[in-house]
Amino acid sequence: MRTSQVFIPTLREDPGEAEIVSHRLMLRAGLIRKVASGLYTYLPLGLRVIRKIERIIREEMENGGAQELLMPILSPAELWQESGRWGVYGKELLRCRDRHEREFCLGPTHEEIITDLFRREVRSYRQLPLNCFQIQTKFRDEIRPRFGLMRGREFIMKDAYSFDLDEEGAKRNYQKMYDAYERIFTRCGLQFRAVQADNGMIGGNMSHEFMVLADTGEETILYDEHGTFATNVELAEVQTSEQESTVPYQPQYRVQTPGTKTVEEVCNYLGVAPNQLVKTLLYQTEANNVIAVLIRGDHEANEIKIRRMLGVAELTLADPETVQTVSSAPVGFAGPVGLTNVPILADHAIRGMRNFIVGGNDQDIHLRDVNWGRDFQIETFADIRKAQAGGPSPSGDAPLLSAKGIEVGHVFLLGTKYSQAMGATYLDPQGKDRLAIMGCYGIGIGRTAAACIEQHHDHRGITWPVPIAPFHIHLISVSASDNALKTTQDLYTSLVQSDIEVLWDDRDERAGVKFNDADLIGAPLQIVIGDKGLTKGTIDVKVRKTGERSQLPPQDILPFVSKWLAEHSSLLRPQ
Amino acid sequence: MRTSQVFIPTLREDPGEAEIVSHRLMLRAGLIRKVASGLYTYLPLGLRVIRKIERIIREEMENGGAQELLMPILSPAELWQESGRWGVYGKELLRCRDRHEREFCLGPTHEEIITDLFRREVRSYRQLPLNCFQIQTKFRDEIRPRFGLMRGREFIMKDAYSFDLDEEGAKRNYQKMYDAYERIFTRCGLQFRAVQADNGMIGGNMSHEFMVLADTGEETILYDEHGTFATNVELAEVQTSEQESTVPYQPQYRVQTPGTKTVEEVCNYLGVAPNQLVKTLLYQTEANNVIAVLIRGDHEANEIKIRRMLGVAELTLADPETVQTVSSAPVGFAGPVGLTNVPILADHAIRGMRNFIVGGNDQDIHLRDVNWGRDFQIETFADIRKAQAGGPSPSGDAPLLSAKGIEVGHVFLLGTKYSQAMGATYLDPQGKDRLAIMGCYGIGIGRTAAACIEQHHDHRGITWPVPIAPFHIHLISVSASDNALKTTQDLYTSLVQSDIEVLWDDRDERAGVKFNDADLIGAPLQIVIGDKGLTKGTIDVKVRKTGERSQLPPQDILPFVSKWLAEHSSLLRPQ
Repeated sequence: MRTSQVFIPTLREDPGEAEIVSHRLMLRAGLIRKVASGLYTYLPLGLRVIRKIERIIREEMENGGAQELLMPILSPAELWQESGRWGVYGKELLRCRDRHEREFCLGPTHEEIITDLFRREVRSYRQLPLNCFQIQTKFRDEIRPRFGLMRGREFIMKDAYSFDLDEEGAKRNYQKMYDAYERIFTRCGLQFRAVQADNGMIGGNMSHEFMVLADTGEETILYDEHGTFATNVELAEVQTSEQESTVPYQPQYRVQTPGTKTVEEVCNYLGVAPNQLVKTLLYQTEANNVIAVLIRGDHEANEIKIRRMLGVAELTLADPETVQTVSSAPVGFAGPVGLTNVPILADHAIRGMRNFIVGGNDQDIHLRDVNWGRDFQIETFADIRKAQAGGPSPSGDAPLLSAKGIEVGHVFLLGTKYSQAMGATYLDPQGKDRLAIMGCYGIGIGRTAAACIEQHHDHRGITWPVPIAPFHIHLISVSASDNALKTTQDLYTSLVQSDIEVLWDDRDERAGVKFNDADLIGAPLQIVIGDKGLTKGTIDVKVRKTGERSQLPPQDILPFVSKWLAEHSSLLRPQ
Repeated sequence: MRTSQVFIPTLREDPGEAEIVSHRLMLRAGLIRKVASGLYTYLPLGLRVIRKIERIIREEMENGGAQELLMPILSPAELWQESGRWGVYGKELLRCRDRHEREFCLGPTHEEIITDLFRREVRSYRQLPLNCFQIQTKFRDEIRPRFGLMRGREFIMKDAYSFDLDEEGAKRNYQKMYDAYERIFTRCGLQFRAVQADNGMIGGNMSHEFMVLADTGEETILYDEHGTFATNVELAEVQTSEQESTVPYQPQYRVQTPGTKTVEEVCNYLGVAPNQLVKTLLYQTEANNVIAVLIRGDHEANEIKIRRMLGVAELTLADPETVQTVSSAPVGFAGPVGLTNVPILADHAIRGMRNFIVGGNDQDIHLRDVNWGRDFQIETFADIRKAQAGGPSPSGDAPLLSAKGIEVGHVFLLGTKYSQAMGATYLDPQGKDRLAIMGCYGIGIGRTAAACIEQHHDHRGITWPVPIAPFHIHLISVSASDNALKTTQDLYTSLVQSDIEVLWDDRDERAGVKFNDADLIGAPLQIVIGDKGLTKGTIDVKVRKTGERSQLPPQDILPFVSKWLAEHSSLLRPQ
């Protein structure tokens, strides 16, 4: 294709709105444009990448035994009420009403619709297992859309749903999808790791996230160096055996701590280490109950563990008004001593503490030498903090390592959550009604493209892996001579005839502008035709990623690039 | 693919909800399933057809110089307010609010988003012409969704938008798209006709609809046998030269016409011909003004012409309460005599009438020997009736013929409607700002599939044209013998290796069930393997559409079907 016939509005400057490299480069290389917060148009180049990822996904899903269908975006409220998710999904679910005032949501996932299809169409065990996938636009009304395609409100997703006779069959399908995901992300040229994860709003008993490793990732994963354990930090259990301390109690006393709101500020002011302090976090549930959570000063609360522990779907830090009402103090000074009518939940680490520091429930006041049991009561001790790198791995003695990751895929073993709620049963060989065992499997396609850029770029632009590059070759002529033009035209034609995807920069621009755009756009190979080379009988080929250059006679170009592309097209290791 | 691995829930009985053949067969052959009114899931077989139509569209759009991108489904209200369509689009526009109470619609078309992209990204005449298309899910909250994919609320559409320097360029793009559409619908195996059409809610100066000819079509088209004229009936001008009659006035008098509400009932009761009667239709505009429209008893009012004439966007028949208030009578008895404060608009045909019959503005009363000018005044005479077959063609002397059609595509020359409203300009070679001249071009993809079934079916099921058939071949073994099984398996493998799409019915079902399903699903060729044929050394091949059968030795099957499919794959006549 010629650049004069493709709409590629590249930008020389970094757009101010973009915080991470993939967002920046997607805007600069003319892959996407923002329409509104979290809503993007995929320009021709961006769409080519998306379509290539989709093709890989399709092939591997079909290899994994899944078949493609397409469900509607509008999802009737009645189905979501049956599953119970209409009430609990909250504001991320984008809802609308039709002209007859019937309620719908714009599907963020499609468990309800597929389960409804199943219960109406599948009758016999002979029709199972069944695994259906779709590639479709999804919606999630994020409170803070950001990072371009990484966290949008409208995004393209592959979602799949499996139905099995029993748990064993469901686990087989789960494993097939797990394996398919490994092939998919490998073929997309990604360095990734599958980790144990929380099932969240989707539900079910087990899940794994596929995390692309990148410093800009919003997720933290923990793993051990033997590769026997990997998990999302949200899920990692903390191995602890804290015993009650035998240090003698000191008398409790008040101290002034003016303007010190953070742990760091309090510690600096009092000259103590963070592990002598206990943070008191006030949370609100969806029913507006307030809970006080105690965490050691150097630890972090894990809200997913707290939610699970309390059995609530939503948990947010209490707003300043509530903090003021409950603790009689502004945010930063809440403490457990004297708190009434608020259940107190403490992390296991608190059990071993004596004579610690807490907020004084009064502006600019903390209490020192406080002790649980003596000064206040704890309802429950539990594992409610985030695991940290350096701690022991649950799988053995190797210490945990941590890394940042971007979640690009998630596989769930759902069990009977939806088949039970919606009555999705089949007749077994004995003629008995049984619940189908389900699994579901998602891949964020735009996010996969973005994650790929996070891993494949340099300071000049994107360095696409061959399988998902928008074009294989960027063809540049730096001379307007008849000879150069004719050579370029001939080469273009022969490449296109060999099904090689060429972007020919046929603009009337300076060589520097063309080179910059080629590096920015990131086709894996660049071919440069100039009079200087031609007089020597050669054409330049540059490998974008390594910068490696070859000078070849015109007739050697096609065989060279065909061979190079073939070698770099399959990123799967041979079995 | 094996039927045991594809979800094809065929139905033996006609589903009650389906009124037209394509809807019935799409449900029966397991192509689609309803989720809610106007919302469907495309099952694997249906999706295969959709994807094939999409591929043809993509190829021909690219041949026509258009490039693919993808815009978001959520469309910010601000853009629609700028174009002025937010206010006038009415209830067909499905709207929603995000968590911050910002308003969006679910795009029914994307003029606003593409024009916004253009104005932000295109600066110079050197970047034009530009023609972008997308294939995407669209929404229209139809008051009465019906006929399956024919008139759904959520549907897959190809939409394209062109931007040109001037009117001449815009017309060139329009013609390119017109030509592309002819190739697309021809390749899909459709009998169709392009007709002049109304621009409706989209706007602009000129448009053509592509109508698939079918008795179940909701549109009426008029054309002449020389092929020099074809139009949607809504748009056809009526050639008329009615002169005022010179028949003497008779005295007007009241007659009882108890219970006669329709023209037919009144004529039967009074023993007169419909052309002696004048219908008085009371319409309401969006501003709730009432207009009386007079149409001769044997003619039909053309609401599009009336709308255009009045310059209003919405026009509906007045509700019974309004009719009662304005005419002092129930629906069916309104007349022009004595109507006050209501402008009266009459079709040209009324000019030539004398001593006619009208409603009496009183229950069960009509007036006879009424005359305009004497008994009431007409504000305007105009062409506001539907043209009829048999009348003269505007293009010459051939009489008009009529046919029913299904609108599958629509091309519009928009002019500057959107570029003007939204400021989409470019700099011309003299550095002057000029408005881009736009066109837009749509194809309903699900509707194209449905229209194809309307044209390609018989009493046993669908008879797909090769290019969009879900599978090329339905392979059936009617014997469970080892020989038959091995022959089937071998043939299946060799067909698949030759990239022929085979659906192998490997179910343990009676031959009759398999034959019925094969005829219903409608793959163009059926291959039947049975012991009887095998003992004679032959396999049966049946052409689904014609019923033609051949008995061929196993080794001749692959060459035969390859040749047959190649011959039937391109439906384009050679240039």
